[in-house]
Amino acid sequence: MANLKDLGEFGLIDRLSGKFKHQASKTVLPLGDDCAVYSTSPSKYQLISTDALVENIHFKSSTILPEQLGQKAIAVNLSDIAAMGGTPKRVLITLGISKKISISFLDQLYKGIHKACMFYNVELCGGDTVSSPKSFFINITILGEAKRGKLFTRKGAKEGDMIFTTGTLGDSSLGLKILSNKQLKCSSKSKKYLLKKHLNPIPRLKESRLLTRSSCKVTSMIDISDGLTQDLQHICKQSGTGALIYEEKLPQSQAFLKVCSDNNSESLPLILNGGEDYELLFTLASDGVKNLYRQFEKAKALVTHIGEITESSKKVSLLRKNGEKIILPQSSGFNHF
Amino acid sequence: MANLKDLGEFGLIDRLSGKFKHQASKTVLPLGDDCAVYSTSPSKYQLISTDALVENIHFKSSTILPEQLGQKAIAVNLSDIAAMGGTPKRVLITLGISKKISISFLDQLYKGIHKACMFYNVELCGGDTVSSPKSFFINITILGEAKRGKLFTRKGAKEGDMIFTTGTLGDSSLGLKILSNKQLKCSSKSKKYLLKKHLNPIPRLKESRLLTRSSCKVTSMIDISDGLTQDLQHICKQSGTGALIYEEKLPQSQAFLKVCSDNNSESLPLILNGGEDYELLFTLASDGVKNLYRQFEKAKALVTHIGEITESSKKVSLLRKNGEKIILPQSSGFNHF
Repeated sequence: MANLKDLGEFGLIDRLSGKFKHQASKTVLPLGDDCAVYSTSPSKYQLISTDALVENIHFKSSTILPEQLGQKAIAVNLSDIAAMGGTPKRVLITLGISKKISISFLDQLYKGIHKACMFYNVELCGGDTVSSPKSFFINITILGEAKRGKLFTRKGAKEGDMIFTTGTLGDSSLGLKILSNKQLKCSSKSKKYLLKKHLNPIPRLKESRLLTRSSCKVTSMIDISDGLTQDLQHICKQSGTGALIYEEKLPQSQAFLKVCSDNNSESLPLILNGGEDYELLFTLASDGVKNLYRQFEKAKALVTHIGEITESSKKVSLLRKNGEKIILPQSSGFNHF
Repeated sequence: MANLKDLGEFGLIDRLSGKFKHQASKTVLPLGDDCAVYSTSPSKYQLISTDALVENIHFKSSTILPEQLGQKAIAVNLSDIAAMGGTPKRVLITLGISKKISISFLDQLYKGIHKACMFYNVELCGGDTVSSPKSFFINITILGEAKRGKLFTRKGAKEGDMIFTTGTLGDSSLGLKILSNKQLKCSSKSKKYLLKKHLNPIPRLKESRLLTRSSCKVTSMIDISDGLTQDLQHICKQSGTGALIYEEKLPQSQAFLKVCSDNNSESLPLILNGGEDYELLFTLASDGVKNLYRQFEKAKALVTHIGEITESSKKVSLLRKNGEKIILPQSSGFNHF
């Protein structure tokens, strides 16, 4: 029998969920996207997603304040709603409380949760609190809604579509590197910027809303949580396509460029596989692109064309600055096991 | 500052959720019932609830098989939907997987989950799998629907209403006692029955459906997960009433009576505070009760009149068999901390 490490997260999910028939006729998308989608009324879809953060796996109490953790826990779930073109509505929170957790930690955690919920107009509507003998964990379930006809999924990219990403890539994983490596050369301004990208990610709800309201035809979308390569593979796998992205077009922040250069660090692994960017990665039929740029500029939101969807035999490839074309390896996701 | 033990589970929930305004106008019941309730269409309500089971807190791997654990995890969540008069629809599952968990454990766990989902026509529509360094945990989020006008909550019991429970009480906690105490005298038939009540509880969806379809006016309902006393206190607190229950009327199974008597064990603490019965506790205006008995009899479902709702100054009281009336103490729930 295989072991968990060999199966990987996605292999395990396929194995465990494979037997389930999806018999509920009102379920539009059961598994395998950022949210499950179902229908309860004619005009809109209901979105739901759940995510757990476990101490010493997803965060270390020594590097994130409880208030930041609360905000981030909500933000990463909001990002799943944004990835489908949805509007977040409600949240349920399960806390697994270990012995060393104090009330003041929980007060601060909820201060962060409360801030994020107020800011994004999301209601806390339930949850569970249990004790967990060793590690603290928090599980968030988020509910949202999307208009029919304006639901973006991972499936639907077509050969010739342009690939875009919001924001800049790699900042969050470089921020994490700074937290764990005190030796890195880094100005206090760069440090502040990169840590903020890691500790306090902004879910791209504004950008998602621009896309749902725009006349551009978004053909697929995902949020970059596992890294650009991984999440682009998800789009290509579900759409039955390949993709080509250009190294020179990958958007990087000033701080990211500076810290990588000052430390002679390779930037590409962070950009491609770093994860936790929580930017939106989406594909678009090429007509109407000018309109898109105008709308993003008006909203002061960053969007970058980074490549094209190709036929599936071309795999997911990267054109390096030196002209070399490499096939990006398939991975089984951030391997928890 | 208070500590978690003093606050208790319900005190903690009040403290943490107190700051949240419930601004989503479509949320009917935000917190403090078996499920949160919200509205997405004119004819029905959406129900949602979440519950975590943590190894060595809610279960021990030495006393429950993974397949039983999977079935029970679904069943206890279905019980929350039953408690509101709802029909379960969808489920999301988060697994926190510790190092010692094997694929065959997970296969068996999902066999149980799959069985329960098929039996109750519930769809697995999402989830998350993460690693958890020390203890295995499973968090379930359940979605259901209820018809408008047929939603039962904890609030609404009125002085003079009759109090009913389905099934028999105390079996599950006696089953747990048998698992942890090998010295108890117990026939193999009784043991099998009581362990089944503990390890494989049946959510009272059939009984809940009888009540939603009946012409009887159910004024409040809850499922007995924390014990009869505790859950009756929830109804009384939210309804602003007291209650009087009669010891001689509390329904007990043959196996329960026999094992308590053979071991000279006091039965009352198990019945009142044992917990994990997952029976429905509900109140009813007294007209139309004959009709109720007929419907339950026809469906081969057990229902017992155990007391009356009183004015709030009378508190929650028990009339003992010896004629003594005692006030049942308020508790802060199963204290996790």
